[in-house]
Amino acid sequence: MEKKITVLPGDGIGPEVIAAAVRVLKVIGKRYNHDFQLAYAAIGGAAIDQFNNPLPEKTIEMCKESDAILLGAVGGPKWDNNPAELRPEKGLLNIRKTFDLFANLRPVKAFPSLLDASPLKREVAENVDLMIVRELTGGIYFGEKHRTEDEASDLNVYSRQEIERIVDKAFELAKLRKGRLCSVDKANVLETSRLWRQIVEEKKEQYPEIAVEHNLVDSVAMKLITNPEHYDVVVTDNMFGDILSDEASVITGSLGVLPSASIRSDHFGLYEPVHGSAPEIAGEGIANPAAAILSVAMMLRYSFGMTVEAEEIEKAVDDVFNDGCYTADLVKNGEPSFTTDEWTDKVIAKIDSNFVIDCIMESYI
Amino acid sequence: MEKKITVLPGDGIGPEVIAAAVRVLKVIGKRYNHDFQLAYAAIGGAAIDQFNNPLPEKTIEMCKESDAILLGAVGGPKWDNNPAELRPEKGLLNIRKTFDLFANLRPVKAFPSLLDASPLKREVAENVDLMIVRELTGGIYFGEKHRTEDEASDLNVYSRQEIERIVDKAFELAKLRKGRLCSVDKANVLETSRLWRQIVEEKKEQYPEIAVEHNLVDSVAMKLITNPEHYDVVVTDNMFGDILSDEASVITGSLGVLPSASIRSDHFGLYEPVHGSAPEIAGEGIANPAAAILSVAMMLRYSFGMTVEAEEIEKAVDDVFNDGCYTADLVKNGEPSFTTDEWTDKVIAKIDSNFVIDCIMESYI
Ligand SMILES: [Mg+2]
Ligand SMILES: [Mg+2]
Repeated sequence: MEKKITVLPGDGIGPEVIAAAVRVLKVIGKRYNHDFQLAYAAIGGAAIDQFNNPLPEKTIEMCKESDAILLGAVGGPKWDNNPAELRPEKGLLNIRKTFDLFANLRPVKAFPSLLDASPLKREVAENVDLMIVRELTGGIYFGEKHRTEDEASDLNVYSRQEIERIVDKAFELAKLRKGRLCSVDKANVLETSRLWRQIVEEKKEQYPEIAVEHNLVDSVAMKLITNPEHYDVVVTDNMFGDILSDEASVITGSLGVLPSASIRSDHFGLYEPVHGSAPEIAGEGIANPAAAILSVAMMLRYSFGMTVEAEEIEKAVDDVFNDGCYTADLVKNGEPSFTTDEWTDKVIAKIDSNFVIDCIMESYI
Repeated sequence: MEKKITVLPGDGIGPEVIAAAVRVLKVIGKRYNHDFQLAYAAIGGAAIDQFNNPLPEKTIEMCKESDAILLGAVGGPKWDNNPAELRPEKGLLNIRKTFDLFANLRPVKAFPSLLDASPLKREVAENVDLMIVRELTGGIYFGEKHRTEDEASDLNVYSRQEIERIVDKAFELAKLRKGRLCSVDKANVLETSRLWRQIVEEKKEQYPEIAVEHNLVDSVAMKLITNPEHYDVVVTDNMFGDILSDEASVITGSLGVLPSASIRSDHFGLYEPVHGSAPEIAGEGIANPAAAILSVAMMLRYSFGMTVEAEEIEKAVDDVFNDGCYTADLVKNGEPSFTTDEWTDKVIAKIDSNFVIDCIMESYI
């Protein structure tokens, strides 16, 4: 397959982890005969420095011509006192808006070798493999606001079309995963939640293979701690998704290695690590590239439909962790730590050796 | 002191745990020479059965003449199919509204002997001692709602006066506790949150002894899991408080023993266990009375200013747990379980013996 990818390294450790992720991407391209055409562009602080704009028109044009976007991270103290329009984060907000990336995918998976860092007991967290699907472009964060000296208000508003497209996306994701969908709302008090629940009920007729449940948001906030393995795909609105995806991100102790995606209905999407730009360690070559590498896997799966290739990357990352190889951020007492490049070498070596094993297996069949 | 208390046993295990709590209350009254005048009234399902009204006028009148309300629990399958106005829960909602009980206090404290039941690692949960203060009568749950075929909306609205009174209450509570206040909002996107944050900033001048911080709600959802002992008093709006108080309630494994209060500015308040009516074990005499007993302690502290008496009860409950005495819900493998009455006897015996020790200590000084 031929795919065009716009690469936006961004700020801080962004360029380093993206360089690592691109190395892995190229190995997969070679192994599976895909032609991944990469074009680099500026975003965030780097774009402000060069073009006085956190999302230059040229970057938008390049993204428009591509099949997916791979992003590192934006932000840093250098731009913290800039006016709102010249803040690095504005680049990220604008790109989501420009491309109408309404579905934010936040997978959380337990890595057995990282569970020591989890605040939860091993037996509670060890089988976690869930994905929060958050509506990203509507709801109360974007609703009308009013303010007087003595009163303030925010309007939470959702249209049927906004809910339908995110719910459809969540059903499709559940089909690609374990076939379970939990829709989260507060339908006992909110009108938006009642419309949301009604639409999920209507839509589920089209997806008879998916097991659907409705949970109230306060109850999910509890169950993400007491029984997180209960969940597969969790779909919810912008604000509930903001809270629950952050809550879920810490339960397995692997916050630093979580990937994410912001996608739309036609499979175009932006893929990025959940971690930030970590300016304090930028340029040292010690950043953890796992989240960026796993973001590439998400891109292959969700934008390009390359399931096998995605699994190959995820398995390699799993294997390297299971071998006890960590970058400095995750290293435990007395263990050696690996640089960004060394750790990426290990992932690529795993991909290579798994590939050889696959070829031998195939030749026996 | 002379205090009038309206006792509303309610449904399910409500009457049993309230009977236990009242026994403890009477012991404290005797020990400390307080005249607690108790008057019983109907609420919830019991009131529907007797008066066809989940909150009869007579109950309201009695509550009006009292200094505090002690409530058991409401609800049960018997009334599940009733119309909305004849649901037991309506009695609770109406009493909060009638008496303008705008501040919901939800303390969460780790009991060392219950930490095995926590989903969190012992070292993460063992020093937890926090209180979520939730605004209970305003915000998006009560704002204007609209619905068409293709759109739904809910208005989140807060007046300065609504925010000021809950923030004042939270500062007062922080003074009675460890002197730290965390105000939770989403001020980077919500107008209501910006007004909220501004008012906390204004108010903090009046409470120079309190250390104040502002946290975003998504960040608190994370930190309640990764570092819950960071928090003392946490104040937030109705919806954020709904989510965070439920999340916080499961971190120490002691959900079944948590008390709560709904109070207003003049110290009048309603005290009740967080647990529900548990109809499946009602009438068996095995319900855990700890939450109801601890609700009495909250009443003594927050409505009557009886700090020493409240601590006496809390210490006794602590001691009984530390002795390894549990009701059936908490009993661990192979340990004996105690009935509601037996467990209450143990608490009263602790109060008695602690009292004797206190008297001896005093006679030596
Ligand atoms: Mg967030
Ligand atoms: Mg709740």
